[in-house]
Amino acid sequence: MTRITVVNPNTSAELTAAITTAAQAVAPLGVEIHGAQPDVGVPSVESHTEEQFAAVGVLELVRRHDAVTDAFVVACFGDTGVAAAREVASGPVIGMTEAALQTACLVAERFAVITLPPRTAAHSHRVVHALGLGHRCVVSAVDTGVADLLDGSTHLLETFATAAWAAREQDGAEAIVLGCAGLADLVEPLSETVGMPVIDGVAAAVGLASSLLAMGVGTSRAQTFAPMTVPALRLAEGIA
Amino acid sequence: MTRITVVNPNTSAELTAAITTAAQAVAPLGVEIHGAQPDVGVPSVESHTEEQFAAVGVLELVRRHDAVTDAFVVACFGDTGVAAAREVASGPVIGMTEAALQTACLVAERFAVITLPPRTAAHSHRVVHALGLGHRCVVSAVDTGVADLLDGSTHLLETFATAAWAAREQDGAEAIVLGCAGLADLVEPLSETVGMPVIDGVAAAVGLASSLLAMGVGTSRAQTFAPMTVPALRLAEGIA
Amino acid sequence: MTRITVVNPNTSAELTAAITTAAQAVAPLGVEIHGAQPDVGVPSVESHTEEQFAAVGVLELVRRHDAVTDAFVVACFGDTGVAAAREVASGPVIGMTEAALQTACLVAERFAVITLPPRTAAHSHRVVHALGLGHRCVVSAVDTGVADLLDGSTHLLETFATAAWAAREQDGAEAIVLGCAGLADLVEPLSETVGMPVIDGVAAAVGLASSLLAMGVGTSRAQTFAPMTVPALRLAEGIA
Amino acid sequence: MTRITVVNPNTSAELTAAITTAAQAVAPLGVEIHGAQPDVGVPSVESHTEEQFAAVGVLELVRRHDAVTDAFVVACFGDTGVAAAREVASGPVIGMTEAALQTACLVAERFAVITLPPRTAAHSHRVVHALGLGHRCVVSAVDTGVADLLDGSTHLLETFATAAWAAREQDGAEAIVLGCAGLADLVEPLSETVGMPVIDGVAAAVGLASSLLAMGVGTSRAQTFAPMTVPALRLAEGIA
Amino acid sequence: MTRITVVNPNTSAELTAAITTAAQAVAPLGVEIHGAQPDVGVPSVESHTEEQFAAVGVLELVRRHDAVTDAFVVACFGDTGVAAAREVASGPVIGMTEAALQTACLVAERFAVITLPPRTAAHSHRVVHALGLGHRCVVSAVDTGVADLLDGSTHLLETFATAAWAAREQDGAEAIVLGCAGLADLVEPLSETVGMPVIDGVAAAVGLASSLLAMGVGTSRAQTFAPMTVPALRLAEGIA
Amino acid sequence: MTRITVVNPNTSAELTAAITTAAQAVAPLGVEIHGAQPDVGVPSVESHTEEQFAAVGVLELVRRHDAVTDAFVVACFGDTGVAAAREVASGPVIGMTEAALQTACLVAERFAVITLPPRTAAHSHRVVHALGLGHRCVVSAVDTGVADLLDGSTHLLETFATAAWAAREQDGAEAIVLGCAGLADLVEPLSETVGMPVIDGVAAAVGLASSLLAMGVGTSRAQTFAPMTVPALRLAEGIA
Repeated sequence: MTRITVVNPNTSAELTAAITTAAQAVAPLGVEIHGAQPDVGVPSVESHTEEQFAAVGVLELVRRHDAVTDAFVVACFGDTGVAAAREVASGPVIGMTEAALQTACLVAERFAVITLPPRTAAHSHRVVHALGLGHRCVVSAVDTGVADLLDGSTHLLETFATAAWAAREQDGAEAIVLGCAGLADLVEPLSETVGMPVIDGVAAAVGLASSLLAMGVGTSRAQTFAPMTVPALRLAEGIA
Repeated sequence: MTRITVVNPNTSAELTAAITTAAQAVAPLGVEIHGAQPDVGVPSVESHTEEQFAAVGVLELVRRHDAVTDAFVVACFGDTGVAAAREVASGPVIGMTEAALQTACLVAERFAVITLPPRTAAHSHRVVHALGLGHRCVVSAVDTGVADLLDGSTHLLETFATAAWAAREQDGAEAIVLGCAGLADLVEPLSETVGMPVIDGVAAAVGLASSLLAMGVGTSRAQTFAPMTVPALRLAEGIA
Repeated sequence: MTRITVVNPNTSAELTAAITTAAQAVAPLGVEIHGAQPDVGVPSVESHTEEQFAAVGVLELVRRHDAVTDAFVVACFGDTGVAAAREVASGPVIGMTEAALQTACLVAERFAVITLPPRTAAHSHRVVHALGLGHRCVVSAVDTGVADLLDGSTHLLETFATAAWAAREQDGAEAIVLGCAGLADLVEPLSETVGMPVIDGVAAAVGLASSLLAMGVGTSRAQTFAPMTVPALRLAEGIA
Repeated sequence: MTRITVVNPNTSAELTAAITTAAQAVAPLGVEIHGAQPDVGVPSVESHTEEQFAAVGVLELVRRHDAVTDAFVVACFGDTGVAAAREVASGPVIGMTEAALQTACLVAERFAVITLPPRTAAHSHRVVHALGLGHRCVVSAVDTGVADLLDGSTHLLETFATAAWAAREQDGAEAIVLGCAGLADLVEPLSETVGMPVIDGVAAAVGLASSLLAMGVGTSRAQTFAPMTVPALRLAEGIA
Repeated sequence: MTRITVVNPNTSAELTAAITTAAQAVAPLGVEIHGAQPDVGVPSVESHTEEQFAAVGVLELVRRHDAVTDAFVVACFGDTGVAAAREVASGPVIGMTEAALQTACLVAERFAVITLPPRTAAHSHRVVHALGLGHRCVVSAVDTGVADLLDGSTHLLETFATAAWAAREQDGAEAIVLGCAGLADLVEPLSETVGMPVIDGVAAAVGLASSLLAMGVGTSRAQTFAPMTVPALRLAEGIA
Repeated sequence: MTRITVVNPNTSAELTAAITTAAQAVAPLGVEIHGAQPDVGVPSVESHTEEQFAAVGVLELVRRHDAVTDAFVVACFGDTGVAAAREVASGPVIGMTEAALQTACLVAERFAVITLPPRTAAHSHRVVHALGLGHRCVVSAVDTGVADLLDGSTHLLETFATAAWAAREQDGAEAIVLGCAGLADLVEPLSETVGMPVIDGVAAAVGLASSLLAMGVGTSRAQTFAPMTVPALRLAEGIA
């Protein structure tokens, strides 16, 4: 049995549960999905500041689960901590953003990320630019916070559909990338509503991680991602 | 049972067999691999000219196998015919080149394609550029023809290793993409020799295709890849 | 006397005639224009699928006419088969798309392609991107098929003018590239209507081909376009 | 009196002292430089993993010093934590990397970063790419660790000179950016040795921060960097 | 005492006075600002043609003032003559456009140039592109001539505010670069009106020039900007 | 009869004669070539400083010859003054650099500029970048001055051949662009020696200008190149 640990970088166990369920639904036979979130950290990632604390949580979780994990998926749009996690994890590490963007390239010529809240558009642009996809991907945002997703996201269907149609009309988008973890329940209704493929990055990342494991292709240790040990530090509550 | 048809765009049944075996080795449980090559076409693809005839073969094979195929993998470095095949196939279509390049992005910051023969470097550049990966990927080539691979490629180990080390030294490459179908038997020895991940695009494409099927994400029909029927034309031998 | 063969990749003799007449109107003294289309092939090129069959027709025509042709012009927006034709033809080969885009660069800082039908916008983007002109060129499309051009295109004047004005207003376009062969009769009225240069790629390609011949500059045989023979294959009607 | 706090993201007080001295040497009249490093954190930043812990230290220091600081300079090549610090600090925040790269653009057409150790080249590429300077800047590295700089860096003169000449010869570099804090004592001897401007990013950042303060231009609050409070979390020693 | 000469490339002494005053307001202690304009030249720079004559004026002024000048600032949006002035001046030369764009990068993720008149948008694009900032900066224009600024620019507040809001809404701009010298009196009211940082390039350039002087970093003489003497030529009135 | 005026921006009548002869050799029937150089100006263009004076000469010549000229070719690598000349000339204006680069794209996948002297490499990069060809073109230089070309350039054959082979070997160049006017006599021997197409930009520009005239496509007047009158200013000898 192969195990993929899906790391939710925020502290919300509800979100971990939702993400894990969605990941399990697409995991290949023989691949077991395990979800985890940090004990200490931020309740959601909606800013660069929160990203920094979340990244430390990612590393903490990788340290804790590495011995029993074949590959990690980082379930935070913006892929916080992924490069660092590649240095630390024994197996492959996939960010949900890179996974979603790569998947979109395979089914559409041009596509759109719809992220939330608007202030995080720069986080999406960062990954789009690192992958060189500025000529094929536009980023838009809906004015909602992550807190609004804790009980599911289907109430946002109309908001997302409006953004998707705008991206179709104005930018020629032919597929939609959901720009946040925890939106998996939007995939089906949004896809049906707008008539375009809708991609959840966590599901996409599970597929990529499984594929890397099947091929036996791991993180290159040649230079950038040569192995590192996580420093003996932890996040604690309270102000220094 | 899910079926992926791996399309070998040249007419070599030996190459189809080798590719199919390699693809089967990485296919997830529940995914069946079927290989096919055109009856009429070119024995290998080592030029733009041969690409054009091979692409017609790809379309012919997609037409013929679509009813019993869940997803197609096109096993020719350069991804000839893939965009067209997306218009024609009912399910997803993945090119081995795009699959390999995306995979390399997940395990290395910079990487190199080693293709063959040298005149096809432009074919690699075309896909690298379409994916926006010019800042992360270099293309080099070894001076060998496809005919030289029909009985396996392990005799090319040293040649590939030399090219890999050069890419490591001069361009900071941290992973190697094998720039031709039928090189799967090089993955393991080359990886061991050079100490870097080595990626076979066919295996990578099988993983991506399986993942798309698991997610239920298909080719966007919104515009570029709206459905087409293959014209009632075929390649025949002889000159018009 | 110098001869340029203008290859119409689809099977419409009416379109060949229109294209040839337009090409003759701009040919330098001493340059003779000859038009040709494949016997077997697709009636129009409005998808990647049709592009693939059309490209085989281009190669067939190059083979047939090479002995009596000094340079070829490929008259299909998207430049299908051009790279392959460069391997096969003895003299230079110019695509109408690359010719039009280069010409626009000489008379305008920013410009727009107006192509048709909308699903082929990706074909234009492909050439724009290969030439590195994404920072100077936008692509828009009008919702018409090639069949609608067989009796001339002046009935589309208003449609094109509306698209041209939109490109001027929203994207700062200062010149218009007609994104299809067979639109030459729109050049003059559209230019007058919108007050911007309007460029027909076939005419532009004839100029470039003539210029290459006058300079004695031919296709480089150094690597990518080293000579190839067209395989002894032909398109035939019917399904394999 | 205006105060700029130079944040050393690692815990080395020696390095803070060296950096602060160098910063003071270039500060405009009326600008006071104050150096600081985190109490708890990593001794040096030579990997993505260490960057993540260092970034939390940056935020901690910004929180602690914000009330008495007009602008912050982050003294770590790679600009770890800078985007987050912009959300948190009342005044401007400048990274030493962006400052150095911008400065190089003002005195040279092409230039080179010489960073250390080699595994951090990707950190430099990240900032170069974010600023769009891939066409003007190359990144090379010397095989030394940060620990080797604690007693000054002049013993590395020859190593850096060799790298600088190679960048001059092979890539047309006309100026050198020192790719690490704590190398300020190399500026003068290296510049004299290689006959090119040599840029220390901390000095450059102090100039930019002073300039922003003089103009009254602060971080935009319009969207990406809208104000954030640092979460009530701290780094503690030990493993969770 | 350090002296920066602010070169106004057009012949308007009123504009020189306004620019100099604004520059003095932000100069660090110990830095003296001196303004100058050519005796013979163009009254304003609103075209490529005027740029060419203005550039000769820049060189004439650099020759005349070099002996008593530590650094030059060229106060014309588009940075006409800056590369040439770098070859001629003993000290650093900073263009207001590059200074403004770099400054914007430090306080905003995306930003907009608002220039005038519209025909000069291409001048802004030229500098944006040379700095590689096409992915972060959009250029818009207001329909006003430079003559309209001679008595100050606050009457243009509403016009600029409208353009700024449009850039915010449509392109995600978070800061505004004023695309002309002589708009410094707009900085404060526009910033207040639109709630975004507003950047005057002359002020930014004074800061950068002061910073280079404080660091002792001058123009690289390695290749592109190796020293040149201005030819013994001058602009005279009348037609040759 | 159609007249193209080839503007030599430096004052060397010998160079004008050489350029004009070469241009006449490739002009289409019915196109008359007329060469001209400024009375007052710089003897050669080997720096940004000289470019600025040369550009004023270009404008002077355009003013003087416009009434009897159908199109202009600017014969200076770097295309100094071309954008301005487009505002002033009634007919099209073509720079030899843009013409050469575009031509190279039609016969080679990758190519190299070999310019002189080395300090002007940045001038070539400027045009390469403006045309978006950084992914297909490298720039190298030979260490020779323009003065060395006044009696012909065939003595430089070996020097250029060495540079061409290096570009072929290291960068995959398949064609060579001669990076200076007055090198036309190198085209044939260099092409024979290195076995690659060699392109003289003046010849290429004559072809493009002829082609634009044949098509009736002129400079767009929509915005950037709206008509301008050259100011009543001239270059005079002596220092102001």
